Amino acid sequence: MDSALRIEDVRLTPILIKDPPLLNTQGVHQPLTPRLVVEVETRGGITGLGETYGDTAYLALARPLAAALPGRSVTDVNGLFRLAADVCGAAPAGVVDGRVDAGGLRGVRTAEKLRLSVVSAFETACLDALGRSLGVPVHALLGGRVREEVEYSAYLFFKWAAHPGAAPDAWGEALDPAGVVEQARRFEAAHGFGSFKLKGGVLAPEREAAAIRALAGEFPGRPLRLDPNGAWSVATALAVAAELGDLLEYLEDPVTGTPAMAEVAARTDVPLATNMCVTTFAEAPEAFARGAVRIVLCDHHYWGGLHRTRELAALCRTYGVGLSMHSNTHLGISLAAMTQVAATLPQLAHACDTHYPWQTDDVVTVPPRFRAGRLAVSDAPGLGVDLDRDRLADLHRRWLDDDGTLRDRDDAAALRRARPE
Amino acid sequence: MDSALRIEDVRLTPILIKDPPLLNTQGVHQPLTPRLVVEVETRGGITGLGETYGDTAYLALARPLAAALPGRSVTDVNGLFRLAADVCGAAPAGVVDGRVDAGGLRGVRTAEKLRLSVVSAFETACLDALGRSLGVPVHALLGGRVREEVEYSAYLFFKWAAHPGAAPDAWGEALDPAGVVEQARRFEAAHGFGSFKLKGGVLAPEREAAAIRALAGEFPGRPLRLDPNGAWSVATALAVAAELGDLLEYLEDPVTGTPAMAEVAARTDVPLATNMCVTTFAEAPEAFARGAVRIVLCDHHYWGGLHRTRELAALCRTYGVGLSMHSNTHLGISLAAMTQVAATLPQLAHACDTHYPWQTDDVVTVPPRFRAGRLAVSDAPGLGVDLDRDRLADLHRRWLDDDGTLRDRDDAAALRRARPE
Ligand SMILES: [Mg+2]
Ligand SMILES: [Mg+2]
Repeated sequence: MDSALRIEDVRLTPILIKDPPLLNTQGVHQPLTPRLVVEVETRGGITGLGETYGDTAYLALARPLAAALPGRSVTDVNGLFRLAADVCGAAPAGVVDGRVDAGGLRGVRTAEKLRLSVVSAFETACLDALGRSLGVPVHALLGGRVREEVEYSAYLFFKWAAHPGAAPDAWGEALDPAGVVEQARRFEAAHGFGSFKLKGGVLAPEREAAAIRALAGEFPGRPLRLDPNGAWSVATALAVAAELGDLLEYLEDPVTGTPAMAEVAARTDVPLATNMCVTTFAEAPEAFARGAVRIVLCDHHYWGGLHRTRELAALCRTYGVGLSMHSNTHLGISLAAMTQVAATLPQLAHACDTHYPWQTDDVVTVPPRFRAGRLAVSDAPGLGVDLDRDRLADLHRRWLDDDGTLRDRDDAAALRRARPE
Repeated sequence: MDSALRIEDVRLTPILIKDPPLLNTQGVHQPLTPRLVVEVETRGGITGLGETYGDTAYLALARPLAAALPGRSVTDVNGLFRLAADVCGAAPAGVVDGRVDAGGLRGVRTAEKLRLSVVSAFETACLDALGRSLGVPVHALLGGRVREEVEYSAYLFFKWAAHPGAAPDAWGEALDPAGVVEQARRFEAAHGFGSFKLKGGVLAPEREAAAIRALAGEFPGRPLRLDPNGAWSVATALAVAAELGDLLEYLEDPVTGTPAMAEVAARTDVPLATNMCVTTFAEAPEAFARGAVRIVLCDHHYWGGLHRTRELAALCRTYGVGLSMHSNTHLGISLAAMTQVAATLPQLAHACDTHYPWQTDDVVTVPPRFRAGRLAVSDAPGLGVDLDRDRLADLHRRWLDDDGTLRDRDDAAALRRARPE
């Protein structure tokens, strides 16, 4: 193998990025949230980029993996899983506590999930470096794109006007159906999104259903999704499903856990989607056998990278389960990776989620632009994005300056700080 | 995308290659058997190679696909499935008859299976051309190898000494346990194989079981497999399984069809493997749900190429099903492709099958050499094999000269010709 493809150096840069006061069932997004930028530099002088969760637990796993990479080839991404299992060690004490993740809302937190999320950033960075080295886009390393554009959905949130003690953000308050509709109008005007997802689990279920009805009134016929992150009872889920019926493209994680999801699925025709009860390959067979979900939301950060995302797609195709794409707070590196892999999946029939329009910080030199809710699939080498090192340094400075309060995303703690009552 | 990666020309060369009089439950291998060599040439002047079944039905599907390729990029292999569905049309009348394939023994023949086998050769050729163009091995386009060598199994057959009217071949007759043991000794001496597979379904089941016992006596502790290609009843399968027990690494397709396989599986501890009841993604869920198989034999010719083979591996990993690799009569191009993809699959825990040692013809310039039953995984660009155009022309001449008798492999017809009684 060409020695220019061997890894010379790996840089990890934890950063804190601004995040608006978006509400979910756990609490509220922190004013700053951690992300980790991974740079893999080859002996040939090419640097590939990856991005993942930046909480200290992820960082603790990323450091030994970064140290183990020099000398290996960037072509060797299948080997990252074994390497990570060998070198990362156990997750830091107290991190894997069997509770639902307080920040990412990604189901129960396990050591394997943390490790896969770390591997995903290294895999993406290796593929970016490989694509740049060879002069081909990442999608060409995944079998090639089957579409020229990837469609994204507007991600609507109930939100406060401002973080506590801060000035209002540009989006203003949205704590009722009218506020959500106004937010949707602004998303559509700014980015042209043709479908809408509302993060629920915040207000009373009937208020959230009312917000969906209001969206349907304002945007007749548009695909609409509601995602309370497992906050409801089976009875509530069934009541909301019955009320909204055909208005919903899908209802996402109305309840927690495969048994409850299966119970809801058996009693409604509304398709159920998940990024909470099927978040690893090990969780799929039971959920599929019980008919708990009709759509799985892929997420390369969860599943261990872009190749594993394609494997998930093949699994879903085999079992007649639909595929959509999940998002968590992320920057332009991850958005580029999401777009590259989404472009290679023929059966991706739903618009992808993205938090990107909510982010005012980024580390890429040219922010992506949505047109008609879509991103063009880059044919430039690698992921097609470049790192703005000045911005990266600024955001890393924020991380260094933080006293530790915000280095771990915890929406529940953020809510307690904001509203001690 | 680099225009040098666009396809300039596609060449299809049907050939007839010599095949020894190997016996199976359908009949006997023909003296000559058809294969198809696919060459995909880029505008940059790079040629990639693929190989698949050469029967006229496959050829009929390959021609329109070849005609549709120029102008597309060799990076675009995900798009081949849709393209093939669009341009290949239906299989020729009479070809898809719902019968078990008379040559390949690959389960029931369907239009989709034929098309996938054709796509596989084009996908392999595109990946070879892409790898050669970029200077990286095919495995690097599949996430990289996880091992330096791929282990193969000795593929033992009951056989005649000679085709009717022809001189005896170098291997001689093997129609009893002693003949099989002698064949195994010679395979081991020539290639160092450490495990053995016996093609069954030819003699009485107790004679085939005796051959396995004889092999176990000669090679204590070596992995042994027996594959009667679905020829037995459930009762016979259970009797053989009970008799051989721990001697078998696995018992392959003792009976035909998922329900019968499930019945056998429920009543024996001997692991069952298949390349007959799970040969497409659509067939997997029922077989997995019923516990019909513990091991699936992948085959990139069946499943639609190297990427799909990796998807099958992910599917099996998810369901806790083991993975091995199937072989049909093939040349050095396919062997290189098998080795490249096998090298990328961490959970491949069984030696791969190969018919290659039985073949005296080849179209590659440097025949691969087994050492200790293993092939080194090439890190040369593409598949790492080059085409011997003189040999290809010779073998194509044979195909042109044939009156049509041998252009479709039909082991049953070959047996009828040889032994009309
Ligand atoms: Mg969700
Ligand atoms: Mg078989």
